[in-house]
This record gives sequence, C-alpha cells and structure tokens, in this order.
Amino acid sequence: MKQYNVAIVGATGAVGNKMREVLEERNFPVENLRLLASARSVGKKLSFKGEDISVEELKENSFVGIDIALFSAGATISRKFCPIAAKAGAIVVDNSSAWRMDKEVPLVVPEVNPDAIKRHKGIIANPNCSTIQMVVVLKPLHNVAKIKRIVVSTYQAVSGKGLKAVEELKLQSKALLEGAEPEIKVFPHRIGFNILPQIDDFLPNGYTKEEIKMIQETKKIMEDDSIKMTATTIRVPVFNCHSESVNIETEKKLSPDSAREILSKSPGVIVLDEPASCKYPLPSIADGKDECFVGRIREDESIENGLNLWIVADNIRKGAATNAVQIAEIVIKSLQ
Amino acid sequence: MKQYNVAIVGATGAVGNKMREVLEERNFPVENLRLLASARSVGKKLSFKGEDISVEELKENSFVGIDIALFSAGATISRKFCPIAAKAGAIVVDNSSAWRMDKEVPLVVPEVNPDAIKRHKGIIANPNCSTIQMVVVLKPLHNVAKIKRIVVSTYQAVSGKGLKAVEELKLQSKALLEGAEPEIKVFPHRIGFNILPQIDDFLPNGYTKEEIKMIQETKKIMEDDSIKMTATTIRVPVFNCHSESVNIETEKKLSPDSAREILSKSPGVIVLDEPASCKYPLPSIADGKDECFVGRIREDESIENGLNLWIVADNIRKGAATNAVQIAEIVIKSLQ
Repeated sequence: MKQYNVAIVGATGAVGNKMREVLEERNFPVENLRLLASARSVGKKLSFKGEDISVEELKENSFVGIDIALFSAGATISRKFCPIAAKAGAIVVDNSSAWRMDKEVPLVVPEVNPDAIKRHKGIIANPNCSTIQMVVVLKPLHNVAKIKRIVVSTYQAVSGKGLKAVEELKLQSKALLEGAEPEIKVFPHRIGFNILPQIDDFLPNGYTKEEIKMIQETKKIMEDDSIKMTATTIRVPVFNCHSESVNIETEKKLSPDSAREILSKSPGVIVLDEPASCKYPLPSIADGKDECFVGRIREDESIENGLNLWIVADNIRKGAATNAVQIAEIVIKSLQ
Repeated sequence: MKQYNVAIVGATGAVGNKMREVLEERNFPVENLRLLASARSVGKKLSFKGEDISVEELKENSFVGIDIALFSAGATISRKFCPIAAKAGAIVVDNSSAWRMDKEVPLVVPEVNPDAIKRHKGIIANPNCSTIQMVVVLKPLHNVAKIKRIVVSTYQAVSGKGLKAVEELKLQSKALLEGAEPEIKVFPHRIGFNILPQIDDFLPNGYTKEEIKMIQETKKIMEDDSIKMTATTIRVPVFNCHSESVNIETEKKLSPDSAREILSKSPGVIVLDEPASCKYPLPSIADGKDECFVGRIREDESIENGLNLWIVADNIRKGAATNAVQIAEIVIKSLQ
C-alpha cells in the first residue's frame, strides 16, 4: 500500500493532538509525519506509532515533499499557509473557518457529501464542529422528507476553544468548590458552573459568528440553499462533547419511528433512544467516540410535520480531527 | 397594617427556605410564621426576623388559625394537604404540580395574569420554574404582536431538583476534578460536567413531564390556547438559575428594537442586551435576583416574523419562592 507524507499544522493544540492520535488509530498509511507549530513549541516531542517526533516551526518551506497537510491552527494561519502548502503540492484539509465558505473550496462531511471532495483545487475545508454532528444526523432525514426549517440550540463543551479553555474550566470549578474567586482569562465571563450565550465574536445583526457559521455551512454541506435555519450557540461547563437540541420542519411527514429507522441505518449515526430506561445521548457517552449519537426523537405537535431531536458527539473527534482524517482517507483513495 | 398567620409547608427544602427568606426581605406582614415539614425535621430551628422558629410536623390540624399557607413539599403532599389547609380557612399558594392544571385553580404569575387570583377557591397554583421566567418575558410581546408558536430549549440548574441535587453536583464535580469515580444518587446519570436531556419522568409520547408542564402551563397563564409550542428541557451542571433559548413566531412583525423597548418597560424584566460589550443574561448575574433577564434578542430570518431570545432567572426565587410570595401579597390586598 502506498504511504504518504503527512503534516499536521497546529500539532500541539487540542485538535492537532487528536489528529495525530486518529491517524494512528485508523492506521492511516503515513510514510513520514511532520508536526508543525509556532516557534514556542519547537523541540517539543510528540509520540506517533511508538516513535518520538520533534515539533518543527511552521515556515513557508515546511510543505516540501508533503502529500497531505492537516491544518488546525486558526483562520489567520490557514489563510496564509494553506495556499502555500497547496502550491507545494500537498492536498490540504483545513479545520479553520478560513476557507469554508469559499466557492472554490469543498466543505465536506464524508457521511454527507463525499463527492464534493472531487472538486477540490488543493484545499478541502473541514466544517465547524457543531455543524458536522448536526448534518450527519439531518442529511438522511433530508433525503427522505426534505427539511424545510431548522431551529437549533447548542450546548457546547469548552474543548472546542482549545486546551487553555479546558484548563480554565478545571481551575474555575476547583476555585468555586473551595469558595475562592475564579480567575477569568479565556472566556469573556466565568464558565465554571455557568452558561455563556456567546461562542466566537458578535456580528452587527446580533448573531455570533458561530451561529452564522452553522447556518451557512449546513446549507453548503447539505447542498440545499432552500433550507431555512436559525441557531443559538451556547457554551456549557462540560469538558468535551457538544450537545444540540434540534427542531426540524419537514416537507413530508416523518414519524419518530421512521426517523429512528432511517437513522439506525445511516453511516456514522448511533440511535440511543429508549427514554423508558433513561437511554439517550450524553456527553459522557459520546466522549472518545467517532459516531454522532441521536435520541429524544419525538413529534413536535406545534407544526404539521415537526420533529425534535437531541444530538451529541465528540467535538474534537468527529467534530474536528476524525472528520479531517476521514476526508484525507477519501483523498488518498483518489490518488491510488 | 393587618398581620397574617403564615405557614410554610416543606420549610426545610430549597424553596421552603427561600420562601422564609423572601417573606422577611419583602417585609410581608407576618403575625406568626409556622414552619411545617416531615417528622424527621421536627425540632430543627430556622431563623426568621432574628427569631428562631422550631419546625413542626405537618399534620391535618396544622392549619388552624393560618391565613396564608405556602406549599413546597411535592405533589403528593400538596394533593393531600392543600384542600385540608383551604378547608381550615387558609388561602393556599401551592408550588407543586398537583393543582396547576385544575380548572378550578388559578395558575398565576403576578406580572402576567394577576386577575386570575380573584377566581380562587382556596388554592392558587404557582407555576413551574421554567415556565414562569419565560412567560414574564413573552407576555408583553404577546400583547403587542401575538405569539403564534414557541420553540424553547432549556438549560436548567440543579437547584430545581432540591438541596440533595445541589450537593450531588458539588460532590461529583469534586470527584471528577480529583480523577475519582463520581457517585450517582439523585440524577439518572452523572450531572458533573455533563448534560442530561431529562427532567422529570418520561411520558409515552417521548416528552418528559417537565416539557409538557411548560407547554400546558404557558397556555393557561397566557390565557391563550391558540399558542403552538414545543419544548426540550435539559439539566446542566449549574448550581442555580435556569437559562432558556426561546424562538418565537409572531403574527405581527416585531423588530428586535421594538421587542427591547417593550421589554424594558415590562414589570419584572431586565433587558441585558449589549453584545458588543459582552453583556447578556448569565446564571451568575441572575443569581439572587427577582427579575427575569433577557438578551440576545435578534431576528430569526428563517421565518417571516421570528425572534430569538435568551432568558435567565433565579429558579428558586422568581421561579418559585418569590413568585409565591408575590401571589400572597396580592391575596392579602384583597383581604384588606
């Protein structure tokens, strides 16, 4: 089997670390792995398949000989370095928001729109975490019943904001339990035992960028601009795994039973929906898993064709690292 | 000023304790305060206006001489003892779900439907916490623009399940931070750093009782059965204050600006809606307050006349104790 030279940009971050782990777990055919980060991480050693790899500084010439470059170092880095990597001959899978809405760049969830990958011109975008888990569950329902409108409220874990945010939740929780004043550094307000109705910056229309990302990316990935959607994205004091309360209106009537049946056969979805025995998706269940969990499927009787769903997934795995590696797996198939 | 003999049933619980506090804070004209609870709390002393009052066992003859009885000891106790208290001549304000949907019993939020109190026959019901904070904010908008449909997802604090639940969140959080196994006693699953999509028991249609309570109570309090509504109620690892992501569709167009203007003049509402400076309602802000905080008001462009709102309130105060005492204040005005 052909082996590939792979680079991870942002290798020391929450997602970058997980990308390395997932490449190993899924036995991705890696010839050489290059770990790239900012100057302050240089010299740090990270393990891959039992071998210690030194982190190198991300530079313009970092992509010589690289076949696949996985980026997760923020939009500013991606805007500059993804084209450089692509020009050097690498196929880029970018986890930042930089290229997602670019018409020339496919935005891909492998369970939903794998064919979009074929149209890439060197860069493929990995969607926002909260979008990925929602479309994995909604696309199979859309195929059967056509979704007209989505109203989603999210319950997003701190890991989505990186390792410092995870540390902040730990430190603040500890302080509050001890009756001490929590220190606020990463989030605009205390997140320990609190709920923040803000993820990313605000836009003039009162929405956050995260909310607009969810709306725009959903339409692009589902390849249907006619879907109407609104979103409220909320940060909760959970370390990992995003949860979502999703209300949909469909053109065709879809009973909860048929939704469950469709979803139980859908790739990447696990239906966990036995309320009588308190079985439903939880962050504590989805943690460390690659599937999107769905439950609490029930008819919304306030409209003619309505359903409510509760969707939980590991935002660092399926919401970021695993989805990126899955894209890379499809990419290398086309190279063989 | 006339003074009244007041009883609190469930005096040692989270809400019962707060009722005593709120009676004192608001200077309710109390002649004598009788604190009633189960046999195991007898002899416990609780302070009121600098005086220690012994907790007595709730018995059939506990209400002799009582003018106002505030109940918060669960539906089973209320079903049995509210009629006994009313028969003994007390006017009952009941915080349980026992009487809320009874046609003979007014279900009251003083800012919304104070006139319903007049129709009481001895028992007045205090609504569910998650319902109260929502209708305080929605009723003024309904008056102007007529709400056709509500889609709500909640973020509910553990205090709503009582003092043992608060203790469980503390203990589990501490255990998890120390890498220990958390003990699960009060909730069906771990609540520490987790999200539970279940509040109260499940019904055959897949909804929880909490969700159905919100839907039914909203229509009764807003006195409009034509309002369509669906709800998803979720428990979050927050000690106190419920948050709600509320999506409404109105008959008349309502801009975010006019909604803010209407709400800024509405009783019991505080508009906190300056996203540019990260000002929006938070549990940490609403804690200990009697008002319902609303922010993140923005147009939902997925429908013609849609708005999103974020509502936070102290579920033990306005969601329970304060609302009950406010009802009692209106009751005694009618007695004078």
